[in-house]
Amino acid sequence: MKLASIKNGTRDGQLVVVSRDLTLAISATDIAPTLQAALDNWQALAPKLQHLYDQLNTGSVDRAVKFDQAECESPLPRAYQWADGSAYVNHVELVRKARGAEIPESFWTDPLMYQGGSDDFIGPKDDIQLPSDKWGVDFEAEVAVITDDVPMGIAKQHAADHIKLLMLVNDVSLRGLIPGELAKGFGFFQSKPASAFSPVAITPDELGAHWQNAKVTLPLLSSYNYQPFGKPQAGEDMTFSFAELIAHAAKSRNLGAGAIIGSGTVSNKQGTEYGTSIAEGGVGYSCIAEVRMIETIRDGQPSTSFMQFGDHIKIDMHDEDGNSIFGSIEQNVVKAGLPHEG
Amino acid sequence: MKLASIKNGTRDGQLVVVSRDLTLAISATDIAPTLQAALDNWQALAPKLQHLYDQLNTGSVDRAVKFDQAECESPLPRAYQWADGSAYVNHVELVRKARGAEIPESFWTDPLMYQGGSDDFIGPKDDIQLPSDKWGVDFEAEVAVITDDVPMGIAKQHAADHIKLLMLVNDVSLRGLIPGELAKGFGFFQSKPASAFSPVAITPDELGAHWQNAKVTLPLLSSYNYQPFGKPQAGEDMTFSFAELIAHAAKSRNLGAGAIIGSGTVSNKQGTEYGTSIAEGGVGYSCIAEVRMIETIRDGQPSTSFMQFGDHIKIDMHDEDGNSIFGSIEQNVVKAGLPHEG
Repeated sequence: MKLASIKNGTRDGQLVVVSRDLTLAISATDIAPTLQAALDNWQALAPKLQHLYDQLNTGSVDRAVKFDQAECESPLPRAYQWADGSAYVNHVELVRKARGAEIPESFWTDPLMYQGGSDDFIGPKDDIQLPSDKWGVDFEAEVAVITDDVPMGIAKQHAADHIKLLMLVNDVSLRGLIPGELAKGFGFFQSKPASAFSPVAITPDELGAHWQNAKVTLPLLSSYNYQPFGKPQAGEDMTFSFAELIAHAAKSRNLGAGAIIGSGTVSNKQGTEYGTSIAEGGVGYSCIAEVRMIETIRDGQPSTSFMQFGDHIKIDMHDEDGNSIFGSIEQNVVKAGLPHEG
Repeated sequence: MKLASIKNGTRDGQLVVVSRDLTLAISATDIAPTLQAALDNWQALAPKLQHLYDQLNTGSVDRAVKFDQAECESPLPRAYQWADGSAYVNHVELVRKARGAEIPESFWTDPLMYQGGSDDFIGPKDDIQLPSDKWGVDFEAEVAVITDDVPMGIAKQHAADHIKLLMLVNDVSLRGLIPGELAKGFGFFQSKPASAFSPVAITPDELGAHWQNAKVTLPLLSSYNYQPFGKPQAGEDMTFSFAELIAHAAKSRNLGAGAIIGSGTVSNKQGTEYGTSIAEGGVGYSCIAEVRMIETIRDGQPSTSFMQFGDHIKIDMHDEDGNSIFGSIEQNVVKAGLPHEG
């Protein structure tokens, strides 16, 4: 089934069930007021949401309204947990190679993951508001899962059972702030501003055969300023499955219902030393940093700029018939106003 | 005023107002069901909670019940944001000195802060359950504030206005996992398991003259296995006030209502090269790591062990009359059972 949260002036939005073709929505507030409330009691409420979804798809309900992606919050407008992995180790290897460093062997067996901030997600069509575009603004196209309650110490082979929903993510990064921040040793903070998620969260069964071993085996589509930028297949070169990422995250803690676990920037190795852009016939990239690394390795310096005010990013994923599965993230980078203080 | 969340079988507990002397509690669910709900609408609801608090303290309500700290969740049993600073740079300097490194000059002007996980806090009297006590289990006694909505780019001079509540924290750390995790470059994750907060969250006015320039000027008391371990004054050697920590956290993001910002381990410089334990007449320490660093600098190796299963930690803060202000965090380290899977 497909679920969304509609902007309604509250902090958590209104839970709706969305039709498979993303044309219709129906309020689910009789079942749960918000997606978090549904996740808090998923075992009892998911069958009721599924029933409503089935009715919506067969046209047997009369309260349905037109679904407008522009009215959506991220499915969880705020969450209690957002942990982002770096499951495409190829991406990490490229970053290091661009500065002449090898990655430790352990990176192929022990997932990289950072603790993200989750109190201030923005909607899938909301502007990326920042005080400056001199901070190296970059998009990162990713896939993420939402879990129910995951007990500490969960084994990999049981972790996939806890995946209840999937989304796409734009994990905005401020590349110019990353080196200084990571050099301090405590990870990302200012360099990871508000993320946006796809309009719709879906249950894994919606992917059919394209949900395999806790990986999504479809291309993740990024368009930058309305030009195709990336279409890497999300199931390829994913060194760690979502099950492995969840088990990593839960080694020393429980994960609460509604925890979001991200894949990291989707990246395919493409069989060439330097990767290949879409214009060159390759699958391209899911962030600007990656093409800049390839330019650095190939040319000695990057030539593609990071995002400027006014730039546009679209992230989407299609089924085999070319239909959007999650709806699309579409965002402009704009200058934030000064805060009203006093 | 003083607020707490009582365990009631729900994920967020029941909001109660607690009397100044911590003896009585009264349900506040007529005003807001949970502390998060109160924070979501603080401007409207805080006066109502304050009125109830005033009535409770003067004995003019008849629904009051005995307040039992053991029934408490952390005031926010789960939160949307938990960002922990390292405001006591003395502590950071000691860590580095123990391994023969200087701290960068910028550490005195640019706060260190890490993004914590906030989906799985434990109650102030709950056991610290872990699969292993070979991971270097340590307590970290800290102070934290809870904010309302903080706009991105807030100036330091306006940030203190957003501090609505204060708590104590035990930011449990797994020292044995930290070096490997930080070496990967993405900050803490597995090395920071569930934190616990004091039974009661208080408004800053409860501290009277001991709330100065967004710092708490009282000793933070730690007892380890029922022996006094630390009593550093939280207002001394705090290089960055809570206002500065909030401004740092909000540089590139909004902070949502209910955001928790921690001070980092409270540490006093004590005017000696090595610090001084309470037994030696000093103010001692707020974590085991610090005394181990001092032992390393002084003796070439640490002699104090990290926490083992069965060990006990108590964290408290007293007013000038010796009365507990926040109630106490009192926890045992115990072995976690295996997760029930299948």
